[in-house]
Amino acid sequence: MSTDQTASAALRPLAAVILAAGRGTRMKSDLHKVLHPIAGRPMLAHLLASVDAIGAAARVVVVGSGREQVEAAVAGQGVMVAVQDPQLGTGHAVQQAEAALAGFEGDVLILYGDVPLVSADTMQAMVARLHAADAPAVVVLGFRPDDAAHYGRVIAADGVVYRIVEYKDADEAERMVDLCNSGLMAVRSDALWHLLARVGNHNAAGEYYLTDIVALSGHASVVETDPAEVAGINSRGELAAVEAGWQARRRVQAMADGATLIAPDTVWFAHDTVVGRDVTIEPNVVFGPGAVVADGVTIHAFSHIAGATIASGADVGPYARLRPGAEIGAGAKVGNFVEIKKAVLGAGAKVNHLSYIGDADVGAKANVGAGTITCNYDGYNKARTVIGAGAFVGSNSALVAPVVIGHGAIVGAGSVVTRDVEADALVVARGRQEAHPGWAARFRARMAKR
Amino acid sequence: MSTDQTASAALRPLAAVILAAGRGTRMKSDLHKVLHPIAGRPMLAHLLASVDAIGAAARVVVVGSGREQVEAAVAGQGVMVAVQDPQLGTGHAVQQAEAALAGFEGDVLILYGDVPLVSADTMQAMVARLHAADAPAVVVLGFRPDDAAHYGRVIAADGVVYRIVEYKDADEAERMVDLCNSGLMAVRSDALWHLLARVGNHNAAGEYYLTDIVALSGHASVVETDPAEVAGINSRGELAAVEAGWQARRRVQAMADGATLIAPDTVWFAHDTVVGRDVTIEPNVVFGPGAVVADGVTIHAFSHIAGATIASGADVGPYARLRPGAEIGAGAKVGNFVEIKKAVLGAGAKVNHLSYIGDADVGAKANVGAGTITCNYDGYNKARTVIGAGAFVGSNSALVAPVVIGHGAIVGAGSVVTRDVEADALVVARGRQEAHPGWAARFRARMAKR
Amino acid sequence: MSTDQTASAALRPLAAVILAAGRGTRMKSDLHKVLHPIAGRPMLAHLLASVDAIGAAARVVVVGSGREQVEAAVAGQGVMVAVQDPQLGTGHAVQQAEAALAGFEGDVLILYGDVPLVSADTMQAMVARLHAADAPAVVVLGFRPDDAAHYGRVIAADGVVYRIVEYKDADEAERMVDLCNSGLMAVRSDALWHLLARVGNHNAAGEYYLTDIVALSGHASVVETDPAEVAGINSRGELAAVEAGWQARRRVQAMADGATLIAPDTVWFAHDTVVGRDVTIEPNVVFGPGAVVADGVTIHAFSHIAGATIASGADVGPYARLRPGAEIGAGAKVGNFVEIKKAVLGAGAKVNHLSYIGDADVGAKANVGAGTITCNYDGYNKARTVIGAGAFVGSNSALVAPVVIGHGAIVGAGSVVTRDVEADALVVARGRQEAHPGWAARFRARMAKR
Repeated sequence: MSTDQTASAALRPLAAVILAAGRGTRMKSDLHKVLHPIAGRPMLAHLLASVDAIGAAARVVVVGSGREQVEAAVAGQGVMVAVQDPQLGTGHAVQQAEAALAGFEGDVLILYGDVPLVSADTMQAMVARLHAADAPAVVVLGFRPDDAAHYGRVIAADGVVYRIVEYKDADEAERMVDLCNSGLMAVRSDALWHLLARVGNHNAAGEYYLTDIVALSGHASVVETDPAEVAGINSRGELAAVEAGWQARRRVQAMADGATLIAPDTVWFAHDTVVGRDVTIEPNVVFGPGAVVADGVTIHAFSHIAGATIASGADVGPYARLRPGAEIGAGAKVGNFVEIKKAVLGAGAKVNHLSYIGDADVGAKANVGAGTITCNYDGYNKARTVIGAGAFVGSNSALVAPVVIGHGAIVGAGSVVTRDVEADALVVARGRQEAHPGWAARFRARMAKR
Repeated sequence: MSTDQTASAALRPLAAVILAAGRGTRMKSDLHKVLHPIAGRPMLAHLLASVDAIGAAARVVVVGSGREQVEAAVAGQGVMVAVQDPQLGTGHAVQQAEAALAGFEGDVLILYGDVPLVSADTMQAMVARLHAADAPAVVVLGFRPDDAAHYGRVIAADGVVYRIVEYKDADEAERMVDLCNSGLMAVRSDALWHLLARVGNHNAAGEYYLTDIVALSGHASVVETDPAEVAGINSRGELAAVEAGWQARRRVQAMADGATLIAPDTVWFAHDTVVGRDVTIEPNVVFGPGAVVADGVTIHAFSHIAGATIASGADVGPYARLRPGAEIGAGAKVGNFVEIKKAVLGAGAKVNHLSYIGDADVGAKANVGAGTITCNYDGYNKARTVIGAGAFVGSNSALVAPVVIGHGAIVGAGSVVTRDVEADALVVARGRQEAHPGWAARFRARMAKR
Repeated sequence: MSTDQTASAALRPLAAVILAAGRGTRMKSDLHKVLHPIAGRPMLAHLLASVDAIGAAARVVVVGSGREQVEAAVAGQGVMVAVQDPQLGTGHAVQQAEAALAGFEGDVLILYGDVPLVSADTMQAMVARLHAADAPAVVVLGFRPDDAAHYGRVIAADGVVYRIVEYKDADEAERMVDLCNSGLMAVRSDALWHLLARVGNHNAAGEYYLTDIVALSGHASVVETDPAEVAGINSRGELAAVEAGWQARRRVQAMADGATLIAPDTVWFAHDTVVGRDVTIEPNVVFGPGAVVADGVTIHAFSHIAGATIASGADVGPYARLRPGAEIGAGAKVGNFVEIKKAVLGAGAKVNHLSYIGDADVGAKANVGAGTITCNYDGYNKARTVIGAGAFVGSNSALVAPVVIGHGAIVGAGSVVTRDVEADALVVARGRQEAHPGWAARFRARMAKR
């Protein structure tokens, strides 16, 4: 969608009404349908982010049941929640937002909580169309799928929409039309409530259909979009299909931007993953929300990255788990079976094997040996471990926080460090080695007899 | 397949003859073809499970070579093994089961060891057809593939089968028939052995073909099934293809039942995996046999679950390995790089990082720190570790079994616990910390000179 | 491609000219395009390996920018690098190799650095065609794609090629031709330089086109190959697509050779992976270069294998990482979250859980307990750990190299071993256990008050 009409569209206030009253029975879930995630972000949050991107002044979510879940999910964001009870159709649903929008004058976008991937650009184009010279009162969003199947059709000529016809009500000529109705609309508020008041329920279902306002308006238009944007989600299978489509497009984008994905189908991005140029991602890497990967980073197979920042030239994995608050410095190395959480690794630092580094600062070029654990929790409090620049922590050490290992210090392998270590010192905190000659041979002989 | 004729079908005893004499040369394997697994269960076991589900009274497997492997695989299950040597065709193969079934009167299902996914419902439908009013002596199982290609055709009209014709022997009209022959049959025992005795070997291959009994019977019928059920396996490529089909169907089922599979193509189920409602499974999770996942569980990426029970609301992974005998309590947490084997985790217990918990009982709400190892093996015996409710095991500890950590006790980080710890006590078992100021600086200076 | 003309083709010396002057802008990379890897080996190295396989006496790579990168990549291999600057077309590019090939007489293969998967057999067939009775001066490599689209066409009749025509210059009849031009050629050196000197640049682009020598030669022929072999790479997306095609073919081959790949699409091979018969590979296994897997090995899910040799009957993973220099003995077991680097595991040795074994020799049937770390590095030097046959290393031990654990010795759990242990001895090197009754209860009471 083009955004060249953004300026004019911005002259009038914008409100978004997101319909989310459907029961979502086919999801078989206790979680409200619109809170199920795509790319690590709830469907509803995808829509709100897009609506915010085009500067909507008011947002209303119309729910049926599950009001509490939706309110909790949008708490603190100024989003209004209206309830539709009983549920008498889509037109009736939009009417439930009228009170919340009392006094609002401008454009109203009508969206669906289970059609989450409509882009901000598409929304913008719909609103902009309202502002065109011919000033339609209603703009519908159409799409042309490979197989129009049983979708409702948009009956239009020369950009003027005469009506939306359900497939089952369409005659043969109408069924030949391949422009389908997504259900999404942009409507001028000065027309919307009047039009809705005129919608009747004299149909088989006894429902008030939002689509009826198109014919009632006498002046509707259409904007077209990619079918992938208006895919709806009614089941976990459709959820997975929309997720798959999103991931496929994101992978193509990452490669076009200069990242090598050795096996693109096995890399899962989150909605906000940032990946630089000349980044190499091996097979089977999962990103959770909040990951930022700078240029020249290599992420080896089987890594799991969320809420983490990886500076240029760093080398991560295989089997690295970076959790929120991990900041991996330039050229640093995080190796296999290593978990990093709320910890800063300085430039060139190395944590290569089987370690847990949490609530810690690891100085530049420090080397943390295999099997090192920062003991950051006593069951009640979290405490911090500081490892100085150039320090060397021997393998299988436990660093009991709060504790400071001075710069350049060496911790002997297998130590349990409970007190600070001064810079450039060696610290050893382990038991003495005692030998018992022949003991093992006698033990085996005893076992063999049993 | 419908099972509405189950009752009548059950009136007569049922025997199953599973043909498994093929060399399986294209598998290039020392393992008998029918013992190669699909969804973690040998092909032959799939068939035996389906046959058992419909109450077969007798089961005979006809093998060529590899008798010992098959006998070992079915040991203790009352399955008879007959040998076909030399191998003179499918009709001859079924005849080898006659001695094993001496005295048996009822219905005989003829199955193929390398066609493992025929469902119990389909088998039941074949048997039920034998019991229909027109009482055919032989029922063949047909299917309509997308491309009939070179399959043998079932020549039938009005439900009466006249003959099975091999593709190479079929005339043009017969080749137009899209109903193909799976090879599977249900036959009344009072007809089977007589019909087989009349089959000749006057054909190009000089073999006795089972399919010849259809025309000889003068009264055969057909039951149709989904082509996926009768896919045969002659190579590792076909094995992988059938596995892929099975997995695809199982994933759809899991989603329909209310589980979210973020990337369905990357979740591998075993034949008996049980998954509840509102379960979330991240990308790349592998189930081995015996996994039961209750409602509301989250399984994070890269987890491997076999023989384990996970109670509701538990949180597992990423990189969790649950092995047989792992029982994860409600709301418990198993984190990254953690292996649990023959161990019970109480409700709300946590084992979050880099641990091995084997042969253990971990009490409710106990917290097992990073890097904890239960030392359950001395080279000869396995011994048990008991961690009381609410206990806190500090990081990098080794618990040398048999040992009991009392409820509410605390184990200091880095301890090696060899004796029982009483409830509410603190135990520390580690070396003293000794500092050597300046040592590291001198070491570096010495190394720099070399 | 058949190799039955190998003998005759070998009678004349062969040179290969690899064109690699393209900027590769669409790769968005600081790395030269031809150095991007497929199956773990740079594109250029794939070509050089194929060229070497058919005995090329001289190899010239023609680069534009990035000469240093290419020279570094081929250092020590006797490959010549020529520079094309400015870049005036493919004909001009080949001319830049003339000086490097001064005095060379024989056949010249002209290849493209970004068309990396042309097989040695195909190259051989092209050269062999030069040696056929009709002795053409030029042989082009053609292919018939599903969709000829905008490829240049090879205009030929009875095996004689009249010209190569670009799609945009082709008339309707020529566009109907489905034999497309790959750009690759074999040319007799006595013709090549003369022909190139006659190529002009009187075309829209003002470039010297290599394809012009076909018509100029008056005597060209064509060899056909599979489209997959001549897929070119201009973007990371195409890089991934060619990688995917390579992997798909390799997986089919592995299965045909007798390996079970439970989920073939999730196994990634390197260019030189060797896999035996009756090997089972679970889902999600990544091979880096240099892996050799003997017969009867099982590799469990989520394993990462590079530069490692695995002897027959060994059992690896899940979550095993074998790095270069790992040699896993017959029947040995490497378990989960275990990293092995430059270490030899004897027959039947076991390292089952959460261990790092680097620079080590582990004797036959030795058992290395969970959480064992070989401390092989002091920040400056790597040292070796030797564990004798039948030794038993208790869990969570640190073995500080250089150190020898004698055969049959037992290391107590949680030990830090710094001195050699004699054979059959027991060694314990840990702290004493001290109990503080009631301490934990008091600690909790204190925390609860805060």
